Amino acid sequence: MSHRVLTGITTTGTLHLGNYVGAIRPAIEASRAPGVESFFFMADFHALIKCDEPDRIARSSRAIAATWLAAGLDPQRVTFYRQSDIPEIPELTWLLNCVTAKGQMNRAHAYKAAVDAAVAAGEEPDANVTMGLFSYPVLMAADILMFNAHRVPVGKDQVQHIEMTRDIAQRFNHLFGQGEALFTLPEAQVDAEMELLPGLDGRKMSKSYDNVIPLFEGGAQALKDAVARIVTDSRLPGEPKEPEGQALVTLYDAFATPEQRAAFRAALRGGLGWGEAKQQLVAQIEGQIGPMRARYDELMAHPEQLEAILQAGAARARAIAGPFLQRLRAAVGLRPYTSTAATAVAKTAKAALPVFKQYREADGKFYFKLLSAGGELLLQSEGFDQGREAGQWVARLKREGLVAGAPVQRETDEAAIAAALAAFQDE
Amino acid sequence: MSHRVLTGITTTGTLHLGNYVGAIRPAIEASRAPGVESFFFMADFHALIKCDEPDRIARSSRAIAATWLAAGLDPQRVTFYRQSDIPEIPELTWLLNCVTAKGQMNRAHAYKAAVDAAVAAGEEPDANVTMGLFSYPVLMAADILMFNAHRVPVGKDQVQHIEMTRDIAQRFNHLFGQGEALFTLPEAQVDAEMELLPGLDGRKMSKSYDNVIPLFEGGAQALKDAVARIVTDSRLPGEPKEPEGQALVTLYDAFATPEQRAAFRAALRGGLGWGEAKQQLVAQIEGQIGPMRARYDELMAHPEQLEAILQAGAARARAIAGPFLQRLRAAVGLRPYTSTAATAVAKTAKAALPVFKQYREADGKFYFKLLSAGGELLLQSEGFDQGREAGQWVARLKREGLVAGAPVQRETDEAAIAAALAAFQDE
Repeated sequence: MSHRVLTGITTTGTLHLGNYVGAIRPAIEASRAPGVESFFFMADFHALIKCDEPDRIARSSRAIAATWLAAGLDPQRVTFYRQSDIPEIPELTWLLNCVTAKGQMNRAHAYKAAVDAAVAAGEEPDANVTMGLFSYPVLMAADILMFNAHRVPVGKDQVQHIEMTRDIAQRFNHLFGQGEALFTLPEAQVDAEMELLPGLDGRKMSKSYDNVIPLFEGGAQALKDAVARIVTDSRLPGEPKEPEGQALVTLYDAFATPEQRAAFRAALRGGLGWGEAKQQLVAQIEGQIGPMRARYDELMAHPEQLEAILQAGAARARAIAGPFLQRLRAAVGLRPYTSTAATAVAKTAKAALPVFKQYREADGKFYFKLLSAGGELLLQSEGFDQGREAGQWVARLKREGLVAGAPVQRETDEAAIAAALAAFQDE
Repeated sequence: MSHRVLTGITTTGTLHLGNYVGAIRPAIEASRAPGVESFFFMADFHALIKCDEPDRIARSSRAIAATWLAAGLDPQRVTFYRQSDIPEIPELTWLLNCVTAKGQMNRAHAYKAAVDAAVAAGEEPDANVTMGLFSYPVLMAADILMFNAHRVPVGKDQVQHIEMTRDIAQRFNHLFGQGEALFTLPEAQVDAEMELLPGLDGRKMSKSYDNVIPLFEGGAQALKDAVARIVTDSRLPGEPKEPEGQALVTLYDAFATPEQRAAFRAALRGGLGWGEAKQQLVAQIEGQIGPMRARYDELMAHPEQLEAILQAGAARARAIAGPFLQRLRAAVGLRPYTSTAATAVAKTAKAALPVFKQYREADGKFYFKLLSAGGELLLQSEGFDQGREAGQWVARLKREGLVAGAPVQRETDEAAIAAALAAFQDE
């Protein structure tokens, strides 16, 4: 098995250029590395925790799926699916619930933060906590363990959840693995040097600062309008400008080659006006984003294409999740009644034992036959002159199994006969 | 919709005569009432909470399913399924998690009992609590709401869970029902007069008292052996005996007609010996249980028959659960990207609007065409001598839709054109 990397995508909110540079672009680049098998999923079950606006849930999920694909995520190369299309995930969540200590969830940061906020507001500690919020780490464990991911790129605030996932996996392996590791223990991957793009005002680009440059929304015009609002110093065209520390320059860097970066800096030092510089920045961004936006518009206009891509991804994901869940179900004891384990039970249950019948026929001879627990004829003996002979053969067959030269005719396949006779040896 | 009654069956443990008389027989009788649609399910997801012995989970589930069928549960008449065969149930559990207040779970009796026990033992309150135990009421709510059961027969200790189910259902209906009740609010049915069978020593028959008479296990011999151990007084044969208050008589009553009851009492008062009375009791029980035991043995010997019955039940249950879950998913916002709601979004998203293009051809005339958001040609105009004419028609089509006599050729079906033109009216 190659190295599996699993990335969850938040399905709410609108994406801006900072998300693209800081998260989407590097994740897509990483998915192209050799020897890596990437899983990207739309975490729409998680979205339900914080949002009870169904239309927004539906709208955001669609726009964000289109964004990732437009940005270059290759659904042929990676497995790209909606969490909610994989019924194996909530089912696994339940199996994991049964081995997860509640005490561990009590210590989850997100839960504790909600409790602190409620207490500070003079409310009951759990006033604002749903079972969705409280059990979110178990769902996240199921997301990861379902595909036995080796590595999960996360923000620092999520490292604790990966540790919880490891604990849950270890406990499950210990209880049900019979010495075998059913689950891979995942590693958190926190990228310290994740590129943080500045916003219009030079602070980190964030919706909460209202300083974002939209990614696709509003088209090239919206991009142009936003760039026009980037704060610069007030030097006039012709005056030399210091490029370092300028948000505009950092933004330019994020879309430029080293040569372009050097040239842009030289031009500013040489007196390039801010207005002109902003035009160059727009051109630079638009060079990368423009074709993506066209693809985004196309996908948004053709939901049937988008849906087909996600459905194909779900089929790929379920081809892994389905058989694996069957294995996990069997491990915890949820087995078809016809499974080997159940059959083994049948052999030891008295009522379900095969049976030898001895009898005398009209020809005066003594016979025996072996019937399965269900009444099927397995062995038919020859006729014996003495009843004792028949009885001795029955005893020997029970004791030694189907020995060579036994005076019997096999009425079914040897395996079934051997299994039936083995039941007597267990007695 | 007829009156739906949902009964959960615990899938662990071994059943005795007290379970049969007190729970199984009355439930099966109730399932034959007219106008009732009964659902019986093997609660094997619940079984995982308390039991980490996979073989026992598998074995018990099989034996208990066989018991209920042998006792007369008619899988043609009722929907009989394993909880774990219905993936819609854990998925619904997650949806319900997101509307369930954690504070409500804090107050669940079973959870509080576990906390009290831990505290009394000097441990952390949550020392012995798994997330399975803690969130069990949400799973139970999903069991019930999945099939919109009207009535749930439960023990007194479970009444609280039905109340929680009602609360969860109400909150879900309120948040996502848009004025419509997605979920039926279930009623708890607590049978006060549930028949309690005495055990060998006259106390309530219970495994914890070690006074049980096995139901099928051990065959007729085990029944006979157990009855032989029933405690009686020491009156000899020929001495008159007072039947009332004798465990033996109460046991007899549970399997006898009023006439037989009267005759049995008269015989005891007339001096019938206890040994003889016990033989009559065995015959009376065996008359009802014997044929069932034969059927039980047959089902245990043929797990494939048992499995087929449960699979057919699961198919029937999923025929209800599947479409209903789709409706619930849509209500919370988990919708295919091609759903109407998603398409409505496409119409309002600026980038995904259809577009009119006006242009001049080599013939010198002015034309316009209507393209879908995805670039598909929807309408093609005739040529106009004046550009103004083309512009006026575009404006009119945007305003009034595809009016009769418009100088255009339809390039696709009328509905698609109408939908595209409607988008302009929303602007």
